[in-house]
Formats: sequence, C-alpha cells, structure tokens
Amino acid sequence: MRPIERRIDGYLSENLERYIEETAHLCAQPSISARAEGVAECAHLVAQMLEAHGLAVQLFPTPGAPIVYGHAEGASPRTLLFYNHYDVQPPEPLELWTSPPFEPTVRDGALYARGAADDKGELVARLAALDAVRAAHRGTLPCSVTFVVEGEEEIGSPHIASFVQEHLSLLRAEGAIWEGGGIDPEGRPVLTLGVRGILSVELSVQTLARDAHSGAAHRLPNAAWRLIWALASLKGPDERIQIPGFYEGALPPSPLDEQLLDALPVYEELERQIYGVREFVRGMRGKELNRAVFEPTCNIAGLSAGYQGPGMKTVLPARASAKVDFRLVPGQDPEDILGKLRAYLQQAGFGDVSVERLGAMWPAKTAADAPFVALAARSGAEVYGRPALLVPLEGGSTPIYAFAGPLHELPVVFAGVGYWDNRAHAPDEHVRLQDWLNGARHIARILEGFAAL
Amino acid sequence: MRPIERRIDGYLSENLERYIEETAHLCAQPSISARAEGVAECAHLVAQMLEAHGLAVQLFPTPGAPIVYGHAEGASPRTLLFYNHYDVQPPEPLELWTSPPFEPTVRDGALYARGAADDKGELVARLAALDAVRAAHRGTLPCSVTFVVEGEEEIGSPHIASFVQEHLSLLRAEGAIWEGGGIDPEGRPVLTLGVRGILSVELSVQTLARDAHSGAAHRLPNAAWRLIWALASLKGPDERIQIPGFYEGALPPSPLDEQLLDALPVYEELERQIYGVREFVRGMRGKELNRAVFEPTCNIAGLSAGYQGPGMKTVLPARASAKVDFRLVPGQDPEDILGKLRAYLQQAGFGDVSVERLGAMWPAKTAADAPFVALAARSGAEVYGRPALLVPLEGGSTPIYAFAGPLHELPVVFAGVGYWDNRAHAPDEHVRLQDWLNGARHIARILEGFAAL
Repeated sequence: MRPIERRIDGYLSENLERYIEETAHLCAQPSISARAEGVAECAHLVAQMLEAHGLAVQLFPTPGAPIVYGHAEGASPRTLLFYNHYDVQPPEPLELWTSPPFEPTVRDGALYARGAADDKGELVARLAALDAVRAAHRGTLPCSVTFVVEGEEEIGSPHIASFVQEHLSLLRAEGAIWEGGGIDPEGRPVLTLGVRGILSVELSVQTLARDAHSGAAHRLPNAAWRLIWALASLKGPDERIQIPGFYEGALPPSPLDEQLLDALPVYEELERQIYGVREFVRGMRGKELNRAVFEPTCNIAGLSAGYQGPGMKTVLPARASAKVDFRLVPGQDPEDILGKLRAYLQQAGFGDVSVERLGAMWPAKTAADAPFVALAARSGAEVYGRPALLVPLEGGSTPIYAFAGPLHELPVVFAGVGYWDNRAHAPDEHVRLQDWLNGARHIARILEGFAAL
Repeated sequence: MRPIERRIDGYLSENLERYIEETAHLCAQPSISARAEGVAECAHLVAQMLEAHGLAVQLFPTPGAPIVYGHAEGASPRTLLFYNHYDVQPPEPLELWTSPPFEPTVRDGALYARGAADDKGELVARLAALDAVRAAHRGTLPCSVTFVVEGEEEIGSPHIASFVQEHLSLLRAEGAIWEGGGIDPEGRPVLTLGVRGILSVELSVQTLARDAHSGAAHRLPNAAWRLIWALASLKGPDERIQIPGFYEGALPPSPLDEQLLDALPVYEELERQIYGVREFVRGMRGKELNRAVFEPTCNIAGLSAGYQGPGMKTVLPARASAKVDFRLVPGQDPEDILGKLRAYLQQAGFGDVSVERLGAMWPAKTAADAPFVALAARSGAEVYGRPALLVPLEGGSTPIYAFAGPLHELPVVFAGVGYWDNRAHAPDEHVRLQDWLNGARHIARILEGFAAL
C-alpha cells in the first residue's frame, strides 16, 4: 500500500464513528417517495450535507421531488460523477422491524434503519471518501467531482432523464459511479457494468359494462378469457416472445462479455434454496443461468379479474388486467417495443385489449475494456483482497441510460456498501460498518486514480 | 273464472296487507349464511311460521344451518313439494340501500328489504296460497303439501343432497315447485324446467417459495405464466373446451326443447343495453343465444397473481390462482369432469397446476311434456293473462338434482314472485306487491289442480 492510501484508510477509520452518526442523522429523516413523505425535508438535509462536505450545491425542483446537485473542482478538470438517491422504500410491514425504521440503531456491527444501505449509507460513504482524499492531499481534490442525488429512484426516476437533458453542461463527466454496488456472498467486490432496460405496461380488457352471472357464460364474453388468450399469444411455454420484431437489434454478448459471464460464480444452488426452485426457466443449469441475462424477458407482475376471495362466486368478470414488464437488452428500445406490442395485439385479433404504458427505461452498458472499469476493478481488488467480479449486464433496470447516452457514452460502474443479505427494500435493512468502511476506501481509491486515466 | 278461484283471489286480496306484514317480519330477521349471521334465529322463526300456517314442523340440524321441514295432509295423498330457503345474500354495500336492508319498508307499491324477493317474500306467498286454498275448501287442502326451507342456498346448498338421501320417505312427492320463479320483462310467467350443473374449482400454481424481483425473469419460473398457459390449454378463442371427453354424454335438446327454445323471446337488445355487449360469444345473434344454453361452458370467475395496485411493481409472482366454473348440461357429471380435468392437465404438461374442488351440482331437467308442467303453464296463463314461457334449461345451477334424482324423477318447475329488476343479491332488493299477489294466485291454482293430475 502506498503512503497516500494509508493516509486515506487511516482517516476513514479514525472518523468512522462520526460518519456513522451522520448516516444515522440522514436515515432518521423519512423520505418515502411512494407517498411523498418527508421528501422535501430530506432534499434540504442532503443539500446541507453536501455543502458541509465542500461541494457547491444547487437544488433543482422537478414536478416530483427536488434533485440535489453538488460540484467541487479538483486539481484535474476530469470529473467523476456520482449518482445516488435520498428517497427510500416504504418501511412496511413495521412489525417485522427489530428497531423502528426511522430510529437508526447500531447493533452487532451494523447500522439498522430504512435507507441505511439503500441509499443513504452509500451516499455518506462517498462523501467520506471525498473528505479522506482531500485530507490526504492537504485540502485539494486530485479530480473534479459532481454529485447527483435524486429523490424518486424508488418510484422509477420519472424526472431524471429530462433533468440530465436540460443540464448537460453541468453534468459533463468522464466517468460515473452508480448507486447500489457491493460484495458478493464470498466477499468479492462486484462491479456491474450494464443494466437491462424495461417497458412496463398494463394490459386490460373490458368486455361488459358490469359483471354478470356465470350462468350466462355461453352468451356473454368473459374479460378474463380475453386477457388470457392475449397473454398466451405473447409467449408460450417455450419462453420465446412472439411479438414480430421483438428481438430485432438485440445485441448478443461480446466475446469479452461471454468470458466475464463464464468467470462469474453460479448461484444455482443458492437460488434453489432461497426460492425453492424445482426447475429454472427453459430447464437451464449452471453457467447458462448467467448467460441468459442477455435474453430479453416478458414477465407477468400481476393478474387481476373477478372474485379472488375464499370459496367460490359464480361471476363472469367484465374487466381483467395484467401488469407486464419486458426487460430489454442493449440494442432494444422500449418505445419501439411498445409500438410493436400494440401492433401485434391488434393484428392477432386482440384489438379489445388496451395497452397502457406504465414506465420505460432504456438498457445501458459500459464496455468491459474501458480504462475506467480497469481502475474500479484494480481498486476493488486492493480493498477487498480478492479479484473483482465484472458483471457485463444485470437483470434489473436503473436509469443509467439517462446519463450514459446524453453524456457521450459516459462509462458507468457500480461500487458500494451493499452485501447480499442487507435487506434493502425489506424490514431490518442495515449496512455493516465494515462494508461501509470498505465501500468508502474503494471510492477513495477510484478518486485517487481517476485524474491520471 | 270458476267460483273457487274467485274465492281464492278474494281471500288473497283481502289479506294482502297482513301477509306483507308477515313478510316484513321475516325479512327483519337477518339470516346471512355466508357469515352464519342470524341463521339459527331465522330457522326458528320460519318453523313458527310454518306451524302457524297449519303445517306439522320438524327442524333438522345439519353441519351448517338447520333445515325446516313442514307437512300437511290433504284430501288426496298426492303431495306437492315446495323448495325454499330462508338465508339471504350479504347486504353490502350498505350505502347503496335507500332504506336499511333489515328494516323492511313499503314504498311505490313494493316491499324493500334483503330477502323481500329472494326468498322470504316468495315463501310467504306460498304459505298464503295454502291458506287461501284451504279457506276456499272450508278448511281442507285438496292435496298434501311438503315444505323444505333450507338455510344454505346462497352458499351452494352443501347439505341439502345428504338431507334428501337420509329422509326419502318424508319427502315422497309427485311434483315440486322450486324457488326463484317470476315473470319476464313483458309480464309473461316464466316456467323454468331445468338447470345446468356446475363444477367449481380453484386452479393454483406455486413455482417459487417467495416472490422474486422481475429482473430474474430469465431464470426463475413465473407462476402467472404457468397459470395462463394451463388456462389457455383448456379453451381457446373458438370456445371449444379441449379436455378430452368433456362433451361425452352431453345431451342435445330434444325436438320439443328446440321448439320451446325457439318460441322464447330473444333478449339480445336488452342484454346489449344492460351489459354493453359489443359482440356475444362466438358472434351469436338472435335465437342462437337461447339455444346455446345447451352448450356447457368453462368460465373464469377470478384471476389473482402478484401486484394488483396502482402503477407498477417489478415483481415475479411465486403464486397464481384462478377460480373456474364449468356449467354442465344434462348427461354430464361434475365428478367425471373433475377427473377428466385433472388427467388432462397432467397429460398436457401442467402437473404443477393443482386443482381444488370448490363445489359441484348436477344438471336436472323435467320433461316439457309432463302433465305437471301443463298444469303450471295453464295456471300461469290464467293468472297473468298471457301464455307461459317454458324454459327447458336455464344457464344457472340450483340443487334440483338433490331432489329430482332420488325422488324418482320428480317433475320440478319454477314459479314465483320475481321480475327482472327486483335487485335480488343487490342493494334495494324488493318485491312488488302485485307480483307477490300474482305469485300467490299462481301457486294456489297449482295446488287446486294438483290432486286431479
């Protein structure tokens, strides 16, 4: 370890307690975007915190929650951008929390609170890394930094893309660290390089003005049947999506992506245990389970029609609906898929099925051979003592597209304070203090090396 | 009109107010079988009422609500059986009632209360008919009568079949009047002669121990998709049910049934208006809509999986379920269909879809040329001044099978106090006083003619 890193690590260890207190202070402020609870208050608190850490802050209103922007010039004009969010998931069910979600508590080497990991603890770890690097350089940052902290991540980031479009010059950067990184069950740092896009829709059918008695089923059209046939026309048991042109433009993994995928651990047995899986989709096993992330999906997230209580009710439902999400791989465009879905249903005889767009995000992927990726991997290996895992594409979706495209294919990686059982989105969410410290050390090393890339 | 009928009609008109009061008294006693509310109290009240009308009463306990049995000997040993029920549907939503459901109120020539029509008003009309006929014959009934008044009709009559099997000698009869008859929108008496059977099942699939994030949809099996594919394998848009052997034994309408079906009015326009139907099943129109009752059906009464609230949630549901009812025509047997359904799902690759039997009723049908049918039709025509409509088979189901089979193909017809807009099962249920009176006059004439058949 070079002296500079020793100074950084020393600074972070010595000030750990103070930073955990700062994290607890932030977590004590509820900021539940799903019901706009405490969001504005939390935005102001975050703005004060960024200022206290030496950033020049601007608060941008949106039709939803404000976006907190912070910037600090460093010795190099090369800018590293940090994406975080200050909003949290609703804490319910409250009775499953060991200590109340908005009364942060340290026990067994971890801080428990809603937001402790996702994403308030992670944000504070990044601010701490900034302090540590600045201290190690006698007050000067080696590179410039920009922080974007939004307040609507947990509800699909509806305003981040237009914010970026309207403030491109403020956001110029040469690399970005996304939120939500961490380590795998074996303690290896996981660097995610890409995410799938998503198109969420609600399909609904109304065949009648009101429910009828099921004794009329030989005459009156049943909305649930119409919905079932429409859904079955989208995908059969072979899992192939039948919308014409759906796979058009979908990029397969590059040879390097394939190498990285095959080098990843396979969590087949773990998933079998956690989810009680008897058989994976298409009977896949082993490495196939990792490679399949390059397959776009059509998922039913919800089905609703008629009577759903105990016992029977002989009703013929007038209305039926399904929530459907498509996960899209690089090369696919959710707006294009939406058009193809609508056209296909029409052409397949399901013009009575209406399609409401609920939300969309585009896929985004950083080339695995970008120098920025190498820096993040090298730093991670140094901090965690184990080689970093590079994940070319993750199954979920997050609004990287909002930044990466408009900002000239900005390379983006994930690096953070999470671990597999930190209960993000669930009761007893927590961040382990050691993970918090390692996350901050990792970020500090990236800040250290970024100017020279 | 013969003098005897004049005396009967005079008696009923003179005593109308008293009988409506008696109906109101019975309706004021809640008897909601779905939640066992007031059911035992109502059984005792009905027993007292039958006794007050000159019947020898027995109260038979069941594992659910008691069955009230009443019998009176007449001049002829030929016995007419009446099937009624004292339980009612839940009154909710309460806010849609003009007057409270259990505070019976007369307004605009009708009695409003839960049960006013279905089936308490109808029961009292039959007791009134009994009184009127007895009075017209100086205290003697021309035929014997048996009343069976059960308390679980609204929850599928789970105990009526075994009650009949265990008390065959008490129930010997040569004809039966079912509950739930009435007049059509044009004031013609409707005599239903048969009902379809029903098999109700819940199909459910569990693919995972818990819900997962939809970002894993390329790996983890989705219960909603399994359910959709299983349902789509039962019936496609051509409406043909794909279970092998499903239609085996299903009897087509007899030539007389076809004549009667074609003589029935077609309510195509009315149904288009009430239900906002754009297109009927299989594009049917006109008389086809009546004939189609001889087609058995497979109806989805409910669908449930995953997230059903507003907006989106990117969840992959572990569990999905559907309520399905099959309406069966004469010649089909629900237990046989259940076995065939299970075998088919297994063979079609849906062994993971479990089938829970929720309930069953067998079809039942009285021959349209039975002399008892002619008596009911003749009497109806006399009371209503219009020829009776004979409906060989109705789309719904009711436990006629429990009586008709064990009691040597007992002929059963419907005749009652209902009309199309009496809001049975809905808020503002009511019986019009004129309908009540006509219903009682009709029953009295059947009692009059029954001994001589």
